[in-house]
Amino acid sequence: MRNIRLLIAFDGTGYSGWQRQRHDVTIQGEIEDRLTRMTGESVSLHGAGRTDAGVHADGMVANFHTGGKISCPAFFQGLNSMLPPAIRILQVEEVRPDFHARFAASGKQYIYRLHTGAVLMPQQRHFFLHYPAAIDSQAVQACLTLLTGTHDFASFENTGSRDKGLTNGRGSTRTLFAADLKQPNDYEYFLSFTGDGFLRQMVRNLVGTLLEVGRGKRSVDSFGQVLLARDRTAAGPTAPAHGLTLKEVFY
Amino acid sequence: MRNIRLLIAFDGTGYSGWQRQRHDVTIQGEIEDRLTRMTGESVSLHGAGRTDAGVHADGMVANFHTGGKISCPAFFQGLNSMLPPAIRILQVEEVRPDFHARFAASGKQYIYRLHTGAVLMPQQRHFFLHYPAAIDSQAVQACLTLLTGTHDFASFENTGSRDKGLTNGRGSTRTLFAADLKQPNDYEYFLSFTGDGFLRQMVRNLVGTLLEVGRGKRSVDSFGQVLLARDRTAAGPTAPAHGLTLKEVFY
Repeated sequence: MRNIRLLIAFDGTGYSGWQRQRHDVTIQGEIEDRLTRMTGESVSLHGAGRTDAGVHADGMVANFHTGGKISCPAFFQGLNSMLPPAIRILQVEEVRPDFHARFAASGKQYIYRLHTGAVLMPQQRHFFLHYPAAIDSQAVQACLTLLTGTHDFASFENTGSRDKGLTNGRGSTRTLFAADLKQPNDYEYFLSFTGDGFLRQMVRNLVGTLLEVGRGKRSVDSFGQVLLARDRTAAGPTAPAHGLTLKEVFY
Repeated sequence: MRNIRLLIAFDGTGYSGWQRQRHDVTIQGEIEDRLTRMTGESVSLHGAGRTDAGVHADGMVANFHTGGKISCPAFFQGLNSMLPPAIRILQVEEVRPDFHARFAASGKQYIYRLHTGAVLMPQQRHFFLHYPAAIDSQAVQACLTLLTGTHDFASFENTGSRDKGLTNGRGSTRTLFAADLKQPNDYEYFLSFTGDGFLRQMVRNLVGTLLEVGRGKRSVDSFGQVLLARDRTAAGPTAPAHGLTLKEVFY
C-alpha cells in the first residue's frame, strides 16, 4: 500500500469541523468522499488533529493509504477539481509507509485573529473575531510569557475525549514553544500559539481568558492563578471558533 | 428633510447586485429595509451606481432623505447592528440637501483581482478570479495605456439601460483617468480602472478581453482594433463578477 500525505487549507465556515460525522458535512468527510470516488477504495484519511466547527486551516496535514496507482499530481488535480473551493489541496506527496499525520506530528501553530475597530470589513468577517475594545497589549503579552514552557493546561481544557498523539500519557500537560501577540495595524491583533500539542478547545479558552486581561477585567496575576488552578471553571469563556486558524503542523 | 450620506462596504457573494428587486435579496433592498424600520418612513436609497450580482464594494456611496431626528452615530450603530455582516456601513454624515450620490459623482475606481497560481486559497475564493495561466503583463499594460483617455467604449458595453449621471447624453463615450496593472506577488494581479463613468459591465468586458491578450490569444494591435470597432461582438467574454470590487466613488 502506498502512503499519501496531503497539505490542506480550508475555510471552516459552515462546516461541522474536521472529523467525519454521520449527518453533518465535515472537512474529513468531504475529502474522504472524493478519495473514495477517485480510487474506488474505502479510504480512511488520518488528520494531524481535529479542528472544531468553524475553525480554519492554512496548513492541515493528513495521510491515507491506497493500493492504486493514481499519481500525486493526479490526486492534486482530481481532488481540487472535485472538492468545493472552500477546501483546497496545496500539496500531495508519497511518504514512507509508517508516516501517520497525527502520531508523527511534533507540534502545531495556531493563530487567533482579532479586529478591534468599530467596523469589521465584510471580507474579514469569517476570519476575525470582531472585538471593538481597547486592548492592553502589554498585559496580554505578559500572560503569553507566563504560558510559554511546559504546564498543566487543565484550566483551559474543555471536557471531551483527547486526541491521541505524541502527547499521549501526559494528561493535560503540554509545552508551548512560543506564544506571542502581533499587531499588523491599529485594529488587528494576531495571537499566535506554537506547541507540542493542544487540548480540546485550549487555544479558544486561552484567548477567551486573555481577552479578559486585555480589556482590564482580569489582572496578569489572576491569569497566572488560573493557569495554576488546573480547573476549567477558573478560566474565562471559550472564544468563538471563526477567529482561529491552524497555520502549520510540524514534523 | 435631512439628507444623509452613507459609505458602504459589502461582500456581494450571494446577493443579486445592488439594485432593489422584488423577489431577490439585494444590497439596496437590505439597507432600505433597515432604514425604513429605523425611521418609520418609506426610505429610498440612491446609490452612486448599480453593481452586478456578485460584485463587491469597499466604498459604495449612497444617500437618502429623512424627516426624522435620528443622529448620524445612531444610524451608524443601528444599521450595523441590524444588517448582515456581509454589508457594513463605514461612515454616516449629513450633507447638503441637493447632494445626490449618483448625479454628483465625478468618477469611480474599480479593481479586478486575478490569481494565477495552481491553487486559490479558500479565503480568497470570493474576491479573486482563479486564472491559472502565465500572464504577459507587458502586453496587458500596453492595452491599458491604449484605454487611458476619452474613448467610445461601445465594444465593451453590454446591452441594457445606462446609469444616468454626469455622463448622461454622452452615449457610450467615457474617460478613463487611469488604468493600470499591479502585481503584489508572483501570483496576484490587480487591474485598476479609474474613470468618470462606466458602461454596463464595462470593466468585466475589458478584463475578459485583456485576459485574451494576457495569455497570448490576442495581440495588443487586435485589442486596439476592438476599441475602435465600437462593436460588442468584437471584444472578448465578460469576466466573472466575483473578481470585481468597487473601490471608491469620487465627488
